[in-house]
Amino acid sequence: MSVASESGIETANDTASYAPTDLTVPTRGRDRAAYDQELVHAILDEAYVCHLGFVRDGAPVVLPTLYGRVGERLYVHGSTGSRPLRMAGDAPQEDPGLAVCLTVTHVDGLVLARSAFHHSINYRSVVIHGTAHQVTDPEEKRAALDALVDHVVPGRSADSRPANAKELAATAVLSLDLAAVSAKVRTGGPNDDPEDLGLPHWAGVVPLSKGHGPLIPSSDLTPGIDAPDYLIEL
Amino acid sequence: MSVASESGIETANDTASYAPTDLTVPTRGRDRAAYDQELVHAILDEAYVCHLGFVRDGAPVVLPTLYGRVGERLYVHGSTGSRPLRMAGDAPQEDPGLAVCLTVTHVDGLVLARSAFHHSINYRSVVIHGTAHQVTDPEEKRAALDALVDHVVPGRSADSRPANAKELAATAVLSLDLAAVSAKVRTGGPNDDPEDLGLPHWAGVVPLSKGHGPLIPSSDLTPGIDAPDYLIEL
Repeated sequence: MSVASESGIETANDTASYAPTDLTVPTRGRDRAAYDQELVHAILDEAYVCHLGFVRDGAPVVLPTLYGRVGERLYVHGSTGSRPLRMAGDAPQEDPGLAVCLTVTHVDGLVLARSAFHHSINYRSVVIHGTAHQVTDPEEKRAALDALVDHVVPGRSADSRPANAKELAATAVLSLDLAAVSAKVRTGGPNDDPEDLGLPHWAGVVPLSKGHGPLIPSSDLTPGIDAPDYLIEL
Repeated sequence: MSVASESGIETANDTASYAPTDLTVPTRGRDRAAYDQELVHAILDEAYVCHLGFVRDGAPVVLPTLYGRVGERLYVHGSTGSRPLRMAGDAPQEDPGLAVCLTVTHVDGLVLARSAFHHSINYRSVVIHGTAHQVTDPEEKRAALDALVDHVVPGRSADSRPANAKELAATAVLSLDLAAVSAKVRTGGPNDDPEDLGLPHWAGVVPLSKGHGPLIPSSDLTPGIDAPDYLIEL
């Protein structure tokens, strides 16, 4: 039994999940769809960029952009002159919002089957449908910008100069609530048809890895400033 | 001086580039926009998934999907029952096509500035606007499916069982021409304001790296089948 709250989160057996909606039940691959809140948060928190989709003059536009998460709300930001941010409007009382789809994907492995047809990738993705709104409350805007910086490097917002009034005025922030949310996950090896198992082709998974190289200090870094612990622990 | 051809490719000084259009000149960050054909191909060929945007019931949808490239044409595929593929229609004489935006992004580094405002990422992205069409020609469909497999692992389509008639019938392929195309690239260190250079915060770049771990053979792999050279050279 599950109990739906106003947030769209359902709780059952101590695990929370997003309530499936018409928008978040896929037409294909339903067995890979997941609505678990912890899984969704983990996928969102691990990526650096999302792909933000919106409609302009009836046609789709998909742009990569940074984002941050505070609880059940995501934030994206940009110049006040950028397209999606202008389109969302900025007068709260008249703000129609901007219909968006925000997608985050990790590619974890290449899946090689004996048959071309069953080639695949192992991946984890989250797709969020909703209406993005301009953040006009100064407190929320500051917290959102901190979240955007800390999303790139946890702990960094406290170790950099905060935005001043001019920078805040030049930056627009959009919020998107985590309500119509779904994850999709594929793991494991290839799913060859039984009659193909004897074919003389190698089959298996090439696991992909991510990491980072040595830090590159800015050429004008003040001598004596060492890399902070939160970077060494990355 | 540049000469525009029918393909939308312009040639000047022996380098080819895509002709900028209203759709591909960004409102912001024009200095980061690029139209060079070789750069676009390199960005497309290095990634595993794209993010495909389309409009359904007036709202944007963004889904991660595999793709392949043959010259100046991209292909995506899916089950004949999947949403974007059904929406594109399948009767060539009546095919209205599907308005799409296909975006590919690499995140190359985290850019840490003294000021929160100037934090950024180094990235390379390609955004393609256009109308996707169902591929109905059997020869083109086979070549497209080979390109999709070879995009994941170059050389692999020749070393796997080709699709049979049933699999071909179950698979829909969409094509998208590279015409309204732009790339965006950011490289280098942070761009702090001069008055911030003396602040006591570390500044520089965390370069991100990609690789792969040891191959994981399928648990039912026929003994004696070694990993092929094209995997060892990955």
